[in-house]
Amino acid sequence: MKKRVGEYLMDSLSTVGVEKVFGVPGDFNLAFLDDIVCRDDMEWIGNTNELNASYAADGYARLNGISAIVTTFGVGELSAVNGIAGAYAERVPVVTITGAPTTSVEEAGKFVHHSLGEGHFDNYRRMYKEITTAQGYITVENAQTEIPRLIDAALAEKRPVHLHLPIDVAQAEIDVQMPYAPAEMINQDVSKYTQMIVEKLQTAKQPVIIAGHEINSFKLHRVLEQFVNQTQIPVAQLSLGKGAFNEENDYYMGIYDGSIAEEDIKDYVNNSDAILNIGAKLTDSATAGYSYEFDIDDVVMINHHDFKMNETITSEISLVNMLNGLLNINYKNTSNFPGNKQSRKADYVINKEPLTQENYFKMIQNFIGLDDVILAEQGTSFFGAYDLNLYKDNTFIGQPLWGSIGYTLPATIGTQMSNLYRRNILLIGDGSLQLTAQDISTMIREDLKPVIFVINNDGYTVERKIHGEHQSYNDIQMWDYKLLPAVFGGKDKVAVHDVETSEDLQETLMNINNEPNRMHFIEVKMHVSDAPEKLDAIGKAFSKQNS
Amino acid sequence: MKKRVGEYLMDSLSTVGVEKVFGVPGDFNLAFLDDIVCRDDMEWIGNTNELNASYAADGYARLNGISAIVTTFGVGELSAVNGIAGAYAERVPVVTITGAPTTSVEEAGKFVHHSLGEGHFDNYRRMYKEITTAQGYITVENAQTEIPRLIDAALAEKRPVHLHLPIDVAQAEIDVQMPYAPAEMINQDVSKYTQMIVEKLQTAKQPVIIAGHEINSFKLHRVLEQFVNQTQIPVAQLSLGKGAFNEENDYYMGIYDGSIAEEDIKDYVNNSDAILNIGAKLTDSATAGYSYEFDIDDVVMINHHDFKMNETITSEISLVNMLNGLLNINYKNTSNFPGNKQSRKADYVINKEPLTQENYFKMIQNFIGLDDVILAEQGTSFFGAYDLNLYKDNTFIGQPLWGSIGYTLPATIGTQMSNLYRRNILLIGDGSLQLTAQDISTMIREDLKPVIFVINNDGYTVERKIHGEHQSYNDIQMWDYKLLPAVFGGKDKVAVHDVETSEDLQETLMNINNEPNRMHFIEVKMHVSDAPEKLDAIGKAFSKQNS
Repeated sequence: MKKRVGEYLMDSLSTVGVEKVFGVPGDFNLAFLDDIVCRDDMEWIGNTNELNASYAADGYARLNGISAIVTTFGVGELSAVNGIAGAYAERVPVVTITGAPTTSVEEAGKFVHHSLGEGHFDNYRRMYKEITTAQGYITVENAQTEIPRLIDAALAEKRPVHLHLPIDVAQAEIDVQMPYAPAEMINQDVSKYTQMIVEKLQTAKQPVIIAGHEINSFKLHRVLEQFVNQTQIPVAQLSLGKGAFNEENDYYMGIYDGSIAEEDIKDYVNNSDAILNIGAKLTDSATAGYSYEFDIDDVVMINHHDFKMNETITSEISLVNMLNGLLNINYKNTSNFPGNKQSRKADYVINKEPLTQENYFKMIQNFIGLDDVILAEQGTSFFGAYDLNLYKDNTFIGQPLWGSIGYTLPATIGTQMSNLYRRNILLIGDGSLQLTAQDISTMIREDLKPVIFVINNDGYTVERKIHGEHQSYNDIQMWDYKLLPAVFGGKDKVAVHDVETSEDLQETLMNINNEPNRMHFIEVKMHVSDAPEKLDAIGKAFSKQNS
Repeated sequence: MKKRVGEYLMDSLSTVGVEKVFGVPGDFNLAFLDDIVCRDDMEWIGNTNELNASYAADGYARLNGISAIVTTFGVGELSAVNGIAGAYAERVPVVTITGAPTTSVEEAGKFVHHSLGEGHFDNYRRMYKEITTAQGYITVENAQTEIPRLIDAALAEKRPVHLHLPIDVAQAEIDVQMPYAPAEMINQDVSKYTQMIVEKLQTAKQPVIIAGHEINSFKLHRVLEQFVNQTQIPVAQLSLGKGAFNEENDYYMGIYDGSIAEEDIKDYVNNSDAILNIGAKLTDSATAGYSYEFDIDDVVMINHHDFKMNETITSEISLVNMLNGLLNINYKNTSNFPGNKQSRKADYVINKEPLTQENYFKMIQNFIGLDDVILAEQGTSFFGAYDLNLYKDNTFIGQPLWGSIGYTLPATIGTQMSNLYRRNILLIGDGSLQLTAQDISTMIREDLKPVIFVINNDGYTVERKIHGEHQSYNDIQMWDYKLLPAVFGGKDKVAVHDVETSEDLQETLMNINNEPNRMHFIEVKMHVSDAPEKLDAIGKAFSKQNS
């Protein structure tokens, strides 16, 4: 069947479940956008800029499994690299499509706008090579091999890929031999490794699983939980990957974050003699500056591709195969571990005093609904929120490895668009909001209804905790945040709330629950030097690391 | 003398005239920012995000001669690449400093936040290699050679450079042998080339100079004007580089933009038999899609490094040397050329009808003051504004080669900060404004007083002219633009104006002149499909180029 290359690409993306495409128009992608807007099974979401689009695509992929973003050559694709690099670091599959000058313009080496003006056209592709797992220059001849290869790579690696698509190629017709179908996963024999693991477990007195973000990327929640139920090994989560394990499960202990973890969890994990690190990375932000005290020789590292146990190291296993392989082992744990003490109800104080961070997060804890999606911005919000106790159907989105401030606001567009029926709660601070604030406009245009809590505490509190508490570089301009929805055309659509005390917050939370079919925007004023306990600790660890 | 490396770097930047440093704080640069904020000769300007900071630094460098930006590792430096690539393309020297993890964290290959989580630390530096003219990894040992080398490279090439500065290195003390002093320029013997040029001129009947952006980058305005006065060769400017030549000079004809140039200029240039292309690039946006009709063999290309005349090609000359060398030739032109018909007064209509683009730019023409700085955003504003007739002391800033929408708003922070006493006029449209709007907040915090005209014509008009006039992807969310100053804390500082007719605009322009010591923000409503004549023509050319 005759199809345009752009049409074939969109057919292929539709096959893997892409229903929204994010991006910004530009003259090198306009004609190709026609192949998106004409479809019934796909919607074009124009963001306010490309960085915001990349964050939205990341958020969408985290829930939907894969996403796509379209930008224009040079100016557009380069504005998106920070977001795409974040997706690479945290394993989020985003198909990045650059609409590029025609093949003939490139062959003639013309000084075309959006180029560096020197007749070269490969600089940006080389930049993308550093932050994507696969890259391709699409031509009429290779479209039917390259497009499948690249989408398959994104799915297999759960990482972004980059397609350079000259605008003439996008519009050219090809004779489609066969519609794209995703490659089947290869089954590896991992019994050699699972056998090693079971032997270690059999001699262990105090085994533990540390679960991390790759469980979310590969959507292995059920397999992991089945493995835990079978083996009864207790689970701790890293903040990097919160949501990897059902927090209502009996074998769940809580968050392990090194020296600042709760005492009983810290004791159990630090004294473990068999630590199955599954899809987790012991980063500085997840471990309060590598402050774990277990013996690193007791750790079995099970990551996508990488397995390490004592002297056995390989980088050829797939996480999916490993975890499925583990379901076959015969082992039952009998250690005494801290039981699941997670409570989804917290005691808070209601009064007319200025709201404290401690009270704020306790009240948020009680506010969380059964299947809410919670996005917590790196900074005060994340370091307060990763200790929230979640229901099994909650989803938690943070970005503690990449840690790009401003990320969660556009990401909320993506998470909300992946499912309009789940309530999305965004927890963000003023400093972060300022980077990407204009995409509130996109939320309003698309009629989304997230609940957005903006902590106004006058500046970059997370930075103050690391260095320069009173330095001017940690100050920001005071905005009239409550005007934002009106500026962005949401005067009648968005309910705006003002919170200064716990009494205000209680009333506001009630009002939000009473008006579920509306976007809510809440400015929460708190004191500049108040911070969640864990932020203080992480700040000290980061400060030490930098000296 | 003992100095910290960071201190030595700032001393060196101060030596070449950097008085403002743009950027965003992050934990890998915080301690280094102390070495900026403690200085009397330097000010830290915290932007709302790194892309905006890169644009501000670009604007500052265009007037100040050089600028500096500080970002943090990964998230920060990658958000800035689009702006830095633009500075590379258009030859603007921006010293880009990345605060990075400590040497020991890197040596240990740690999974540190803002890294890709794989123990590598060189990915971002390789990305910067594509868009900067020189790069360096600063150490205690090489600081006193690398920092001078990099600043010298920025000055010599008028292009950005990248410094990777681990935060421990920034804080380490070195024994400064000698304060940095800029390298002296090398004098080349270019007489071989100037001799060729004079021979060509002597046989030419209709010589012309096409002046472009490198004249602005190298600040060669006076040398060029002296050459023109001596030789009496008429000058046309490209829109890419408007401001390269004094538009009040008798030998100035006007803008040459290929097929859409004014008839008499087009005739003269197209029929020229000796075209000295000085510091200019014949890009698609500057020539309405390469629609020049002169014989390319009659063109003498004189660019920085590159000289081409017939079969003589070299890439080893400096533009400064070439232009100074040309001052020594003995030649006087006698051709009949269109005289300087530039008028700085235009006839416009005043009425209560909806304002037209044509009338708008005529009224802006009359509004321009003797030494205003005019920034015109790529899109409707640029394609209307590059035909404005300027006074000799005006400065014109556009970005037609790189063409990144949103650029001029933060760039205005930089241009205004380079000289608080010149009036800065920003001409921008709604589509572009939305990308970078939050840096209005930085203008307000820094108490700047630019005059900002925002055309509200409901979407990406420049894209509509190229493709998809009525397609939804060219629509944007309607904002309440006049609320923006209030949101960003400028309720009492900024005068906000609403313009729908020429009568409104006349009154507003008068009010602006009556209150010069204030920031003015003007929303100018115009019809969605109205556009400057030249935009229509360029749109058609770009559309054709993409098919």
